[in-house]
Parts: sequence; structure tokens; C-alpha cells
Amino acid sequence: MVQITTGETLPFDYLTVATGATPRLPSVTGQDLEGIFCLRNVTDAIRLKSFIRQRNARRAVIVGAGLISLEVCEAFRRLGLETTVIYRRDLPLRRLGKDFAEQIVMELESNGANFLGDTGLESFEPTSSGAIIVHTSNGSLESDLVLIGIGVVPEVSLASEAGIELGPTGAIVVNEYMRTNFPFIYAAGDCCECFHRISRKPVYAPLGDIANKQGRIAGANIGGQNVLFPGIVGSLCFKVFDLEVASTGLTLEEAEKVGFKADSVTIQGVSKAHSYPGSRELQIRLVTDTESGRILGAQSVGGDGVVSRINALAVALTGGLSIEELAYMDLAYAPPFSGAWDPIHIAAQQLLK
Amino acid sequence: MVQITTGETLPFDYLTVATGATPRLPSVTGQDLEGIFCLRNVTDAIRLKSFIRQRNARRAVIVGAGLISLEVCEAFRRLGLETTVIYRRDLPLRRLGKDFAEQIVMELESNGANFLGDTGLESFEPTSSGAIIVHTSNGSLESDLVLIGIGVVPEVSLASEAGIELGPTGAIVVNEYMRTNFPFIYAAGDCCECFHRISRKPVYAPLGDIANKQGRIAGANIGGQNVLFPGIVGSLCFKVFDLEVASTGLTLEEAEKVGFKADSVTIQGVSKAHSYPGSRELQIRLVTDTESGRILGAQSVGGDGVVSRINALAVALTGGLSIEELAYMDLAYAPPFSGAWDPIHIAAQQLLK
Repeated sequence: MVQITTGETLPFDYLTVATGATPRLPSVTGQDLEGIFCLRNVTDAIRLKSFIRQRNARRAVIVGAGLISLEVCEAFRRLGLETTVIYRRDLPLRRLGKDFAEQIVMELESNGANFLGDTGLESFEPTSSGAIIVHTSNGSLESDLVLIGIGVVPEVSLASEAGIELGPTGAIVVNEYMRTNFPFIYAAGDCCECFHRISRKPVYAPLGDIANKQGRIAGANIGGQNVLFPGIVGSLCFKVFDLEVASTGLTLEEAEKVGFKADSVTIQGVSKAHSYPGSRELQIRLVTDTESGRILGAQSVGGDGVVSRINALAVALTGGLSIEELAYMDLAYAPPFSGAWDPIHIAAQQLLK
Repeated sequence: MVQITTGETLPFDYLTVATGATPRLPSVTGQDLEGIFCLRNVTDAIRLKSFIRQRNARRAVIVGAGLISLEVCEAFRRLGLETTVIYRRDLPLRRLGKDFAEQIVMELESNGANFLGDTGLESFEPTSSGAIIVHTSNGSLESDLVLIGIGVVPEVSLASEAGIELGPTGAIVVNEYMRTNFPFIYAAGDCCECFHRISRKPVYAPLGDIANKQGRIAGANIGGQNVLFPGIVGSLCFKVFDLEVASTGLTLEEAEKVGFKADSVTIQGVSKAHSYPGSRELQIRLVTDTESGRILGAQSVGGDGVVSRINALAVALTGGLSIEELAYMDLAYAPPFSGAWDPIHIAAQQLLK
């Protein structure tokens, strides 16, 4: 039985918990000031845009440097805002490696945004003119608005009170059918965990495409089908200004942490044939299991063709393919799309040496 | 021992036959006239370009409608030539299906090229002004130049005289090590056959990326390594004007011909998220083995993102993945690159119904 805010109770045969996630907040003085925003849904976006217009905002500070923060940084620069990203760690997307993370910072800076690494948020203070002073471990900044993008936490208070089991990530534990510890209660989306097929561990991966798949599977099973969610391989991508960034599977560090003896190689390639107009540089890092030769992960940054390579490699991860297979993989070749040796081949050939 | 044209003989421990392929010629009257070209190498391209410039050519006829012909058609149009493609069959790239082939014709026509299907070449006749009359089964055309692009034949005369075995395709038979029927004679590239991993048959696939791989493998084995060429899955792609066309594995017709009980589905998708600027339409056709659910092939046409999807599917073919795996494949998602449900998911989900 579910009790809703009107006081009514609703009976059920099956229940699906799809409570999503809520933005993480920094717990500092002044975080409720007007002009401080999170961006979680369309309403948030509309509020943020109208604030910028109505106040004729010219300066923005973004707290955090994840995917949402960096995408918003691009949007702010396109609106002409002077934009500073502050981040408690040295570099954004640090798990992709220092070299790739530095390219992201260069992309921000070459598009007129400021990046302040190793900078912790301390508090917010209002000014008499309606601006906000952002106090950090690295000095103070005055801004017309602040976006907080430091991640989300699964919204599990209701589930937890009802006795639904939470996992080590703090999100709801589900099996392959998206069923919780109660046989008639399912969960799907950003409130629950995922099985990572490469690390073989539960992870928290609150991404829209995964939520969509989980919702469909929960619904199919409730509707009497028998559909399994095979889990994820950890694929993600984003675009910031003219840089594509994408990743699938494990980084070398992550692979070693879960017990693999792993190798990696990083190569410089181009998105199209060298001779073809508009070819852009890209880098691919491949991570492989030293014993089996199986691919464990890949990370890539570059001007173009990054996401398409990572998707091919995500399929290779799903299929458990080896570096040998990748080194001679029959990818479709024509000069507008790649060289005769694609960056994927080049990286895999390097690992075979 | 190899005898060369100077009369010298060269001894060898290992020999590699890399004689490539030569353009197929139509065997019609007048095919040696000045102004009639094939396009096989850089010298051919330079000769063709200087002829166009020197003669101030304004009209071109292309005989054949394969990848090279269509790419040259685009190049001719960019040079401002009035261009007509004549083809003995009704539509170009007919194996990809009538619907996809018709889109290719529409793309040619919307870019000002003429396509004449069901039109056989009969002969060439010179005019007094130095032009060429192209006589066809469908009337005669006057042109300043003609490009013949009706495919290539493996150059195997030397190999054949030496007793090297040729296969059913007319090209040299090689094993996984790229070795011919003589233990010390290897062959690689457009003069030899390939093993098609899906049809499990030898095929003739004279493509640059395959030749590169075969050459590397022959060299590695001669050098004492032990490297196998796993074969191809039949991937190819090209761009013609603003249309991307790509294919991997078998079409439904081909799958049935080699004995599979197969199904297929064709879906309409978009290259990026619907809401994202610059998203273009694309279609994907997936072919699947009805019994095992394994993917057998895919074909795609569209404005953008076609080749990246086909490459992901080429990897899926190589890994022997099923439609179930594709339907919930963890591809990297962000709106500049796809919807939360990628066209690959949508096609695979359709086949699961």
C-alpha cells in the first residue's frame, strides 16, 4: 500500500520505485541565496535562463567540473557570460588521465572560460548590489550567478524507510530483472545501482540512457515478460566546445584496483584520412587484460570521431573481444571517415608489440 | 626464382605476390579513344584532372555506379561538370536494397547529376571536335570525357602461370597466414581472396584497408611471427555528396542465399538527439539469424552518423553478438551524438518484438 500526500492510500500488485536522484549540495553558508542554481530538469533550465536575462547577468561561477558543469560552461560562454569553473581536484574528469584532463582545461581556456583547480568552495556571501561573493580555498570571486554541479545522490529515503535494500553505493539494489529485495517491488533509473560487466561490481551510474533501459526492462517484467538487464560497460561521452570526450569500461587504474593485471597504450590518431579535409586529431587509450589479451576499457579525446570509436570499443567490451581481434577488425573504411588503419587498429597494434 | 623484365633472375627464400588488380574494361568499340579514363591510382587521377583543365571539359559520362564511380561523380560535380552516370542495372548499390539505392539516386539528382539506370554501354565514337559519343542501350550521349568504373579484376596472370592456385572468385587462394598453395609463396592485397566470417565463404573484396592488413600479416609471418588473418565481415562505406552509405555483413537476400533462416527490420532514426541542432535522418536495416538471434548484417544510409553505427555493428558481427545484446547495448550517450535510444537500439528492439 502506498500512501500519498493527500492522505489517500493506493493498493498495488507491483510497485516500481523510480524516484530518481537529487542534486548534491555543498552544505556551506549561503547556499540558499537567490542566484544559486542546480540544473536537474527543464524547470531548472528555464529558471536559470530567465534569471540570466532578467538580471542581465554577466558573470557566472560553476562549482564542480563534471559533465553537466562543463556542458553548462559551454552554454554560458555562448551567452557571453564571463565564466569560472572551480573544482576541488586539480583537473576535471581526472579518471581519464592527466593528459586527457589537461586537454579539457585547454579547451575551456581557449574558449574564454577560467578553470580553477584545487579550489574548494567555502561559502557564499551576498553583496548589497545583489551579486554573490564565492569564497574558496583559493580566494574570493564576485559573480552574478552560481551553478552547483557536484553530482547527484540517489533519492532513496522512501525506499529505505520501506525496508528496500540499499547497496554499497547508497542506491537501491536490484537484480537483472530490476527487482528489489521485495518480489513485487521493482526499481529503475537514477535511484538504483547497475551491474558493471567489466569490474563485475555494482556501480552508481545515473545516466539517462541507462535509466531508459532499466525502465523498459522493469515494465516488461511486470508485464509478464522475462527480460534481463545485462548491465553496463561504463560508456559515457560529452562534448565541450569543439572537444569530444568519451570513455568505456575501465581505466588502467580502475582495472588494477579491481584485480586485473593490465596494460595500456595511448596513441595519437586522426579522425579521417590524413589527406581528407577537416581531419582532426584524436587520442585513444586502450586498456587490456595482460593475461587474456581481452580489452578492459578505452578513453578518448579529440576534435571529431571520438564517440564513434568509443562506441565500437563498447561493443568490443560487451563481446569480450581481444586486442588481436581489434588489431585486424574489419571496420568500414573510406577517407571521409578514417584512414585505412583506424586509430582503433593503431592502438591495438601497439599493444600487440 | 623470379625473372624480371631486364632479363635478370632474382632468387628468393620467400616470395610475396602483391600484383593487385586492374580496372575491368567493357570490351566495346572505341574504348581506347583519348578522353576515356579509368581511376586506379594517383597517376590516373592526375591525368584525368589535367585533361579536364586542358580541354576545358564541361560534360562527363561515368560508366558504372560502384563506390569509385559515385565518389568521382561528386568530384566532377564540384568541378562544375555536367555529369551523367550510366549503369546496366536499375539502381546503384542494389544489394543494399531498393529503398536505400533510390536514396542514392535522389542524392545524385539533387546535386545536379543524371543517373540512367538499365542502360548498357554499347560503343564509343569520336566526333570531329574531339568529343566522344557514348552509344548505350538507352540512346546516345555526347561527352567531353568518360570515366569507366565497372570494377576491377585481380591481376593474377603471373601467379596463375606459376601454378599458384586461384579460387572460385578468380583471385589467389590464401590460408589464414596469407600463404598460397606453395609454402614459400605468400600473397596479399587485391590479387587474393578473403575469408568472409559470416557467410564462411571466400570472397573477392579489393579494398584498401583489407589489403593493408593482409600485407602486414604476410610480412609478419615471413618475418617469423605467427599471425592469423581472421577474415572480414564485409564492411564498407562511402560518402556521396551529403549522404553517408555503409554496410557490414550480409543483406537479408545474401543471408538466405547462404542458407540462414533470417529476418530483417528497417528503422528510421536520427543521428543526434531530436532536440539537438544539426540532427540528420538515417535509416538502419538489421539482418538477424532467426534461430540463434545472432546479428548477420546491417546496412545504413543517411545524412550523418551512418558509418559510426555500422562500425559498432561490424564489431558486434565479429563478436557474434545477438539482437538481445544490441537492444540494451551500453553505447555512450549525449545529445550531440545520439538519442538516449540510439538507432541501433531501436532497430534491435524492433526485431525483439
